[in-house]
Amino acid sequence: MVFELPYRRLLILTEGRLGVFSSKTGAAVLRYRPTDCVAVLDSQHAGEPLRSILDGAPDVPIVANVADAMGLKPDAIVIGIAPVGGALPDAMRRHLVDGLGSGLSVISGLHVSLSRDPQLAELAERHGARIHDVRDPGPIQHIARGRARQMRVRRVLTVGTDCAVGKMVAALELRKEACRQGLDAAFVATGQTGILIEGWGIAVDHVISDFAPGAAELLVQHVADRQVCFVEGQGSIGHPAYSCVTLALVHGVCADAMVMCHRPGRAFHSDWHDCPIAAIERQIALYEEIAEPVHPCKVVAVAVNTVGMSPEEADRAVREAADRTGLPAADPIRQGCGDLLAAVRGRIGV
Amino acid sequence: MVFELPYRRLLILTEGRLGVFSSKTGAAVLRYRPTDCVAVLDSQHAGEPLRSILDGAPDVPIVANVADAMGLKPDAIVIGIAPVGGALPDAMRRHLVDGLGSGLSVISGLHVSLSRDPQLAELAERHGARIHDVRDPGPIQHIARGRARQMRVRRVLTVGTDCAVGKMVAALELRKEACRQGLDAAFVATGQTGILIEGWGIAVDHVISDFAPGAAELLVQHVADRQVCFVEGQGSIGHPAYSCVTLALVHGVCADAMVMCHRPGRAFHSDWHDCPIAAIERQIALYEEIAEPVHPCKVVAVAVNTVGMSPEEADRAVREAADRTGLPAADPIRQGCGDLLAAVRGRIGV
Repeated sequence: MVFELPYRRLLILTEGRLGVFSSKTGAAVLRYRPTDCVAVLDSQHAGEPLRSILDGAPDVPIVANVADAMGLKPDAIVIGIAPVGGALPDAMRRHLVDGLGSGLSVISGLHVSLSRDPQLAELAERHGARIHDVRDPGPIQHIARGRARQMRVRRVLTVGTDCAVGKMVAALELRKEACRQGLDAAFVATGQTGILIEGWGIAVDHVISDFAPGAAELLVQHVADRQVCFVEGQGSIGHPAYSCVTLALVHGVCADAMVMCHRPGRAFHSDWHDCPIAAIERQIALYEEIAEPVHPCKVVAVAVNTVGMSPEEADRAVREAADRTGLPAADPIRQGCGDLLAAVRGRIGV
Repeated sequence: MVFELPYRRLLILTEGRLGVFSSKTGAAVLRYRPTDCVAVLDSQHAGEPLRSILDGAPDVPIVANVADAMGLKPDAIVIGIAPVGGALPDAMRRHLVDGLGSGLSVISGLHVSLSRDPQLAELAERHGARIHDVRDPGPIQHIARGRARQMRVRRVLTVGTDCAVGKMVAALELRKEACRQGLDAAFVATGQTGILIEGWGIAVDHVISDFAPGAAELLVQHVADRQVCFVEGQGSIGHPAYSCVTLALVHGVCADAMVMCHRPGRAFHSDWHDCPIAAIERQIALYEEIAEPVHPCKVVAVAVNTVGMSPEEADRAVREAADRTGLPAADPIRQGCGDLLAAVRGRIGV
């Protein structure tokens, strides 16, 4: 059972937290679904130009409350934050109450289940709205059979040297470039922000471990008739807490090519200050070795995340990644995905 | 939260399925908790000598119904089967109804939840009995921090070339031999049969994937003050469906030594007829490479499962495993764990 979200007129709720990092989830939805977003809901920034806060965002208004947005005919409120711990801030609750009361559905990537919140559930029921907890994968009990190998769709998986290095962004940008080049290309979301952006997917890290590779297989099955799909990776193969989710994707997706995502300058895994990050070339070897027993697969390119660097620093970081790995390297946002996709296409033959 | 089962007078329910393979779970409990088992409940074999059916079983009676067992003062019924699919056979339900009605608790490793079965739950409540679904890990939300590395207890993990090759048995036999040699040694159960045998543990394959390595870390924490622990492995690192559970244990346990478990003669993963099993020496390298980023660790010995082989075939299989890997090899059941444990002790320094 793959999650699907049939909404096309989104109201992005960031109440009090609008910003590139403080409302990362909302910023990602605004970047990747610009034409599906009708407004941002944040009383502390109401009336300001959105682009003055989020560079490159669509030209939609920031409103102070749900009533001010109703003229734009939203169909759902997207919770635009994903805080550690994942509770619903009180300041956001009143907007959800107003929105559900106006018949808007709610889409949440929070850890807490809003669909089981008595007040919100009752309001949704009364007004014919729905509440979607995209982190809840539902009762997935599919055991992987290694079937993705036999599907027509070519499968490209983004993998990483750590968490939060840009695996989702790389997959989205590769898909965009592939479509631009005329390929029938899909993006496969495996985490809550990707699901919010794409409107379907499974949060694989919330699936029971016996069924996590099966969830990956179901996701590929969902795009089995497409030409190529770019699957958002999770975690990192050497990460003490998340490597099992990483491997569930490597073996469940049966990737035909992997793109390594890397953020230079980190010595330790984020939040695991005593766990060093292995060198990128060592990690590439490890991903290829671990893929091999199920479906042999190579890392064919490196997506370098240079956010916050000067142009010179970024150039140097990209060159260094290419030198160390012997692979084409680029920052998908600064430099585009042309070279990365060329390497992928050369490998998978589309 | 680690599962604990405080029962010491077990009635093993196998109704109609008593046998080495047909009631594998019950046979394992009888083998490893002989003094805690008061009787077997199976109307089709009532009155027969148990040892005529299960070689080496304790000398306890086979009874036809709960009433006939009550004189032996059982405190819990253990469901002695773990069928694929995992439903409760109708023929077993009537015994559970009788048992709960007599105040006996029920311990189940079935996939279906008996504690949520309305009839059984109501009976348990009425008679002050409890129903334990050992496959249900409860709400474990612990994220691994790589802390097992810093604990006093030395950690030995059994790993395998496939599923169902004897990882639990190897860990249990190693623990037994370690205790015989005077070590303060614990067995750490990570699956339902191991939990039934040991009385505590977590079914790691039923933990949400984000928290599976955390569950492994909690289990080690539970024995942190012991001298050495032998952790039951799960799945296999190259298995298309279960590798992520395997890796959750490798990284969560931060093993100091691994013992490879192998059943010779299989070409393909059980039930995955199109997925070849990689050569044992290749798999040993893979386990060591994947352990390395979190806590470097070597495979130090090979436990060979020779069940069903003639003595000559078994000797040849053990010799071949030793030759291919350059490691000490033995069948823990036929030959004992002396050589395997010597290799482990040499490595971990206890």
